[in-house]
Amino acid sequence: MSSTFPGGRAPVAWVAGVGVSAGLGAALARRFASGGFTVALTGRTAQQLQVVAGEIEAAGGRAHAFAGDVGSEAEIHGIAQRVQALGPLSVAAFNAASAVRAPTLELTVDQFTQAWRTSTLGGFIFGREALQLLLANGLDPWAPTGRGSLLFTGATAALRGKPPFAAFASAKAGLRSLSQSLAREFGPQGVHVAHVVIDGGIDGEKLRSNAPQRVVQAGDDGLLNLDAIAESYWQLHLQHRSAWTQEIDLRPFKEPF
Amino acid sequence: MSSTFPGGRAPVAWVAGVGVSAGLGAALARRFASGGFTVALTGRTAQQLQVVAGEIEAAGGRAHAFAGDVGSEAEIHGIAQRVQALGPLSVAAFNAASAVRAPTLELTVDQFTQAWRTSTLGGFIFGREALQLLLANGLDPWAPTGRGSLLFTGATAALRGKPPFAAFASAKAGLRSLSQSLAREFGPQGVHVAHVVIDGGIDGEKLRSNAPQRVVQAGDDGLLNLDAIAESYWQLHLQHRSAWTQEIDLRPFKEPF
Amino acid sequence: MSSTFPGGRAPVAWVAGVGVSAGLGAALARRFASGGFTVALTGRTAQQLQVVAGEIEAAGGRAHAFAGDVGSEAEIHGIAQRVQALGPLSVAAFNAASAVRAPTLELTVDQFTQAWRTSTLGGFIFGREALQLLLANGLDPWAPTGRGSLLFTGATAALRGKPPFAAFASAKAGLRSLSQSLAREFGPQGVHVAHVVIDGGIDGEKLRSNAPQRVVQAGDDGLLNLDAIAESYWQLHLQHRSAWTQEIDLRPFKEPF
Amino acid sequence: MSSTFPGGRAPVAWVAGVGVSAGLGAALARRFASGGFTVALTGRTAQQLQVVAGEIEAAGGRAHAFAGDVGSEAEIHGIAQRVQALGPLSVAAFNAASAVRAPTLELTVDQFTQAWRTSTLGGFIFGREALQLLLANGLDPWAPTGRGSLLFTGATAALRGKPPFAAFASAKAGLRSLSQSLAREFGPQGVHVAHVVIDGGIDGEKLRSNAPQRVVQAGDDGLLNLDAIAESYWQLHLQHRSAWTQEIDLRPFKEPF
Repeated sequence: MSSTFPGGRAPVAWVAGVGVSAGLGAALARRFASGGFTVALTGRTAQQLQVVAGEIEAAGGRAHAFAGDVGSEAEIHGIAQRVQALGPLSVAAFNAASAVRAPTLELTVDQFTQAWRTSTLGGFIFGREALQLLLANGLDPWAPTGRGSLLFTGATAALRGKPPFAAFASAKAGLRSLSQSLAREFGPQGVHVAHVVIDGGIDGEKLRSNAPQRVVQAGDDGLLNLDAIAESYWQLHLQHRSAWTQEIDLRPFKEPF
Repeated sequence: MSSTFPGGRAPVAWVAGVGVSAGLGAALARRFASGGFTVALTGRTAQQLQVVAGEIEAAGGRAHAFAGDVGSEAEIHGIAQRVQALGPLSVAAFNAASAVRAPTLELTVDQFTQAWRTSTLGGFIFGREALQLLLANGLDPWAPTGRGSLLFTGATAALRGKPPFAAFASAKAGLRSLSQSLAREFGPQGVHVAHVVIDGGIDGEKLRSNAPQRVVQAGDDGLLNLDAIAESYWQLHLQHRSAWTQEIDLRPFKEPF
Repeated sequence: MSSTFPGGRAPVAWVAGVGVSAGLGAALARRFASGGFTVALTGRTAQQLQVVAGEIEAAGGRAHAFAGDVGSEAEIHGIAQRVQALGPLSVAAFNAASAVRAPTLELTVDQFTQAWRTSTLGGFIFGREALQLLLANGLDPWAPTGRGSLLFTGATAALRGKPPFAAFASAKAGLRSLSQSLAREFGPQGVHVAHVVIDGGIDGEKLRSNAPQRVVQAGDDGLLNLDAIAESYWQLHLQHRSAWTQEIDLRPFKEPF
Repeated sequence: MSSTFPGGRAPVAWVAGVGVSAGLGAALARRFASGGFTVALTGRTAQQLQVVAGEIEAAGGRAHAFAGDVGSEAEIHGIAQRVQALGPLSVAAFNAASAVRAPTLELTVDQFTQAWRTSTLGGFIFGREALQLLLANGLDPWAPTGRGSLLFTGATAALRGKPPFAAFASAKAGLRSLSQSLAREFGPQGVHVAHVVIDGGIDGEKLRSNAPQRVVQAGDDGLLNLDAIAESYWQLHLQHRSAWTQEIDLRPFKEPF
């Protein structure tokens, strides 16, 4: 695998919210690595990042692990400097989230805050740092695809609040709103900001561990395939700037909605 | 003015986000006071609350000022105990918000957090305390209008994120989502949860001070009249439980939208 | 019952989509009649209209039956002339609909067309005639409530297409869109155009005949009460023009949504 | 150019709403032809279809012109038989529309009807015929991408009614609703139904002729590029059935929204 980009260093894709190998963050990193990007991986657990980075490198890609907490301005700012050193940032994908499930009266202020801190404040902190790099990346802002992409992982919960997910839904609604503000503000400057509504269970480690019976019930392709999701992020990045998408939904063919 | 309710103490309306007399919080309090409710006023500035309470009492109503910060669980929990002592809570209206206006890259983490803390976390803390009282108010849950109402003041920004209001819009989107979760969870228990989308400038002290030229340009009824807004909250409370509204929009007749 | 309006003739409320007495059209007519309006009733079945008109008159109101098909421009135009002769039109409510239920591949072009003709084209024809009268009614366009209201009965199906209601949903979505265009165009001219999303079963003759078991299952206030719905139309009409609602939803307190 | 499909005949893409060569229908046909599909072109003007078909064949593709009116059940049913004879239908794209621009009170019933007949009824007639072929195409319903795609061209007007486009918006809202009903009904059977919201001016013959100054003002990539739009349809078709999109928006990077 080699870079398809002309000149010196390959453009960089920075993915936040990377955890286990069989998770969406890792799948996004793999997709961009296989597309020739140098990928920077951010997540809370250094060891998980090392595993994913190792797999990408074993497959011939370039990957760097930068552990950090998206809710911490200082940490993410520090990581941004290291990302910038890797090459011009061309794609930033925010995939962090923290789901809390509880009847609303049993939710604590701390839980409500954590959900927002990871999904919404994290999106703001990451997005702001990524935008600074994207706007200064030296890539041609008038290239067909613009100067880069900022992609947010959303959820159906962002569209409708519903118990027992009051905290998660509120946080995801706040993130979706943020993605719209950023799209309106930075689209004309050549940055493609998009929000991906994941509607359904993801066929990954989390569900396989926590709800194996749900995996069985879903049947073939009844859960969202990790690579299939990642492919849509990749295609969003490739869109021509004359026809950008701000929001797409993704759901299994048999998912009721 | 006297209570129209049978039996002993008048039901209570608790309004959070009360500031100056010519503001929406105060107008909501006046509307419920004139409908026979004992009103409890919460806002950050004790002196402003005293003024509004004084006016309501001068007009023959019953009002109590409980200064506090909606973002503080301890303060709101303390106030809730004092509200409970006034009589059965029948209406709770959340009207607090904190608008920040800035290009997104200039927003600080503190500003982004404050916007959420006041509008979203405040709504959660207030809503949770109010629900505890509403569910235990001793009012007939099978009464035509249910056992009470929990009303949230929203904004058009809740429906679409747009600069320079990224922080405010994200916070209001989170609040709107919360109102939906609460409606779905507590409607079947007899609590009417609704969200009011204010779309346009409010004809109050804030705009008259900060943007007098906008008031002039708006012309007759081109800004939302405070009493007119309050009347719609009142009518939401009076709705029969077989036909409740979860969301209404309110805008001046000549507002472009 | 007597008119509460000053001067000569009482304003007129024109309701289209009036059928049996225990239906929403009839309930709307009763509500406006009891508010002092002369009501004009339009529906396909003259005999049903006579029954409803008779009941209103027996209760002290004023009612006139004008049978006609909302999908026929000529018939509705003719009725509009007769409505105009009754007095100044102040409220027009469009309540006609034709539900078809079928797997989409079994829907015929005729069924798909009928659903649209009644719900959407009917709304256009009725709305256009009503607007001509409202704009020329001689009522003060700068009155607090404006010069009149044009209210459309919608359905949840307008918000999301779902089998086996593809035809009905498409037609109702088209009607909802029309109500928005009219609101944006005629609001600034003093006509309040609103759309009411009925979400749930209506406790009327139709459901009681066709699905009695559903009525039983719904339990107390589990279906939308006719008078409760009508009250919200009435309140929409009374709104101050500085704070008009374009859309409200109405659903039973225990309805899942 | 040669088919990339195994076995005998290449799968077929049927595009309705094909007009001039520099239009979206033709661009969609070209994209699918270059992807190895045999394309069937339907539009009102035989001569235009011949030109587009000729261009595709000159470029090494396979194209067939079937002139017809999407609002005519008989014509579209007849064409469907001829399409079926070409090979297994794998993609059907509905791109017909008829825009009317007028103040709402000046719209005639005929204009309102025509807008619906082309955009909504046409979508129903075409969709139904296409679904019959898709469900019977012999392609593997459990293939990664399902057994085929039914794609509808939508518009921002579908999301909000606004003068002077009351008729067009109502019709497009009805089409969007239909696409949702079909997605919910036929997704589980392996047919990918999606709706593409075009938000902005298309850089094609229509705008270049009718509003050349708008083309100039839009500047580089300020209008939607035909090939860029078509590429997103192509990518929708390629999506894995575990992660299908029901709706995407497409707009130029600098378009205000």
